[in-house]
Amino acid sequence: MATCNVIPDAGGIRPYRYRDGVLQLLDQRLLPTEETWLEYRDYQGVAEAIRTMVVRGAPAIGIAAAFGAWFAARDIPAETFDGFWTEFERRCAVLAATRPTAINLCWALERMKSLVRANPLQPVMNHKIALEYEALAIAEEDLRINRAMGRHGEALLGDGARVLTHCNAGALATGGYGTALGVIRAAVAAGKTISVYADETRPWLQGARLTAWELQRDGIPVTLICDNMAGYLMSKGEIDAVIVGADRIAANGDTANKIGTYSVAVLAKEHGIPFFVAAPISTIDLSLADGSLIPIEERGDREVTHCGDRQLAPEGVAVRNPAFDVTPARLITAIITEHGVAGGDYLPRLRELVAKGR
Amino acid sequence: MATCNVIPDAGGIRPYRYRDGVLQLLDQRLLPTEETWLEYRDYQGVAEAIRTMVVRGAPAIGIAAAFGAWFAARDIPAETFDGFWTEFERRCAVLAATRPTAINLCWALERMKSLVRANPLQPVMNHKIALEYEALAIAEEDLRINRAMGRHGEALLGDGARVLTHCNAGALATGGYGTALGVIRAAVAAGKTISVYADETRPWLQGARLTAWELQRDGIPVTLICDNMAGYLMSKGEIDAVIVGADRIAANGDTANKIGTYSVAVLAKEHGIPFFVAAPISTIDLSLADGSLIPIEERGDREVTHCGDRQLAPEGVAVRNPAFDVTPARLITAIITEHGVAGGDYLPRLRELVAKGR
Repeated sequence: MATCNVIPDAGGIRPYRYRDGVLQLLDQRLLPTEETWLEYRDYQGVAEAIRTMVVRGAPAIGIAAAFGAWFAARDIPAETFDGFWTEFERRCAVLAATRPTAINLCWALERMKSLVRANPLQPVMNHKIALEYEALAIAEEDLRINRAMGRHGEALLGDGARVLTHCNAGALATGGYGTALGVIRAAVAAGKTISVYADETRPWLQGARLTAWELQRDGIPVTLICDNMAGYLMSKGEIDAVIVGADRIAANGDTANKIGTYSVAVLAKEHGIPFFVAAPISTIDLSLADGSLIPIEERGDREVTHCGDRQLAPEGVAVRNPAFDVTPARLITAIITEHGVAGGDYLPRLRELVAKGR
Repeated sequence: MATCNVIPDAGGIRPYRYRDGVLQLLDQRLLPTEETWLEYRDYQGVAEAIRTMVVRGAPAIGIAAAFGAWFAARDIPAETFDGFWTEFERRCAVLAATRPTAINLCWALERMKSLVRANPLQPVMNHKIALEYEALAIAEEDLRINRAMGRHGEALLGDGARVLTHCNAGALATGGYGTALGVIRAAVAAGKTISVYADETRPWLQGARLTAWELQRDGIPVTLICDNMAGYLMSKGEIDAVIVGADRIAANGDTANKIGTYSVAVLAKEHGIPFFVAAPISTIDLSLADGSLIPIEERGDREVTHCGDRQLAPEGVAVRNPAFDVTPARLITAIITEHGVAGGDYLPRLRELVAKGR
């Protein structure tokens, strides 16, 4: 099924392109030294791209999964609703199983599925048409959401602020503009002088490879450090604020984000530095009372023991590689969303923000 | 001047060998995949080996510098004491300038120099003979010191303890056995079951490359993690104690050690986990009132931006690369030395321990 739907180039960095039924993903494993776009036409390919981190970042994973669900639907031969629905659910489950922590993946798939579920009397062909529109809508909305988050959040960063960020919560992690980096971009756009310290973010080096790359492209001053240097810079008074993204936020404000975020939050508290989380409403999971219920993905040893083909550790050494950790709400100064900022007692305020999004 | 002095192989891992006036250093830049021994016959070579981290670790740097000072003396043509002394001091200053933070470097050179200074009436040839003996004594003493440290410290680790260490304070960082890892080895030798989490220790990866390698060789269970994972494991109750080495300890107990140590100490305090420092008396610098006076070496960008030849960050990105940080005494549960353990009010106790060492 060929289409002529295109996401227009709104300017700025994007992790994906979509045209005529083909999804292109910028291979984030190869940045910053190679800019290679890979093409996807079926849901299995998209699932593999998410699993192997061609695309990463909670909102960008959600967008890729939405296109994956559209490819999944497009290729289903069944003509009855029941046949179509059964197979569509099965394929969406394959996409959902690729990464366990980021809730945006499930959120995007749920949104795609609910469109079908809500319209059981429509012919299968119409579902296929509507699902493409829905994937495009999810992607375009994300960019608007990030710009709104930037407007709400930029007031929290003072002129001259030296801001630490961990991992990449930027344009590459989203539909564009970014969550944490979107707030930084909005502060810069508001005329403030902002400089950024980017944690390199072992083992996958999202900070070194992606955050440094995209801030450098936008001309925002960025200084790269190893993760273990943030505490030293804080102790020297060289960091004024911390801002990070999120992969899942529990009802009480506990926030799962890239491994190491929790350590940064503890250090920020020790030094009296504000610690901000920027994330879309779709990241909030009200079904989980607190962060202890968020599943934490453990990834393979090789990410830690090797750098490309280069062996960094002795053969056969045991490794732990949790990809995320949970920062308790008490360490978070504020959570910035597209509908406003939450702080203090997160439970009622997050409920309110989620309700606004409905 | 050929000699037949040899350091006997006491068994176990050593970062150096010495025979017939030639110093061999195990090239720690190539571990764990290559075991290459480099030969040194002059002080310039030893200075370069320290500067480029062929040998690293505060006590091992002290030992290498002592041999460097002996090579420096050996090659001085002057026959008068004054001529010899002037040139010897100049050459020792070259060795002292290689790394600024570890005090053991200055301590070892001071010890070599004081031997000459104390005996101005001796002929130059005798100084040259005595300096070789002194370098050998410094090296052999260090091994004995580490074993004593192990005896004093092992009681602090309970049976079954899961112990986090940062960087490499092991046999490779010393004359053998190790400071922090020496305490772990002593606890294992005392019949306790100890397992170790090794922080990989960016950017130089001493934990991944050296600590994991030497513990694996000794059959002590070791699990490698990225630096940013320690907080997560602590929050999960998987770490019972932290033990690290030191590069310089101020009179009040503030301790400079590998970058990232401070962050680990803050995390340990947050989780109520004891944080131990193991270091020889020669690491204590009573001339500095507190840690703010310890010079912190900043190393080159490439250690952070590259892994071997592989580029990890975009071209031209700004980098900070402090090689050490300072952990304030209030975060340190105890300092373990070869003359006993200090805790609580460090100032009088460290003075007492230093006096014992005289």
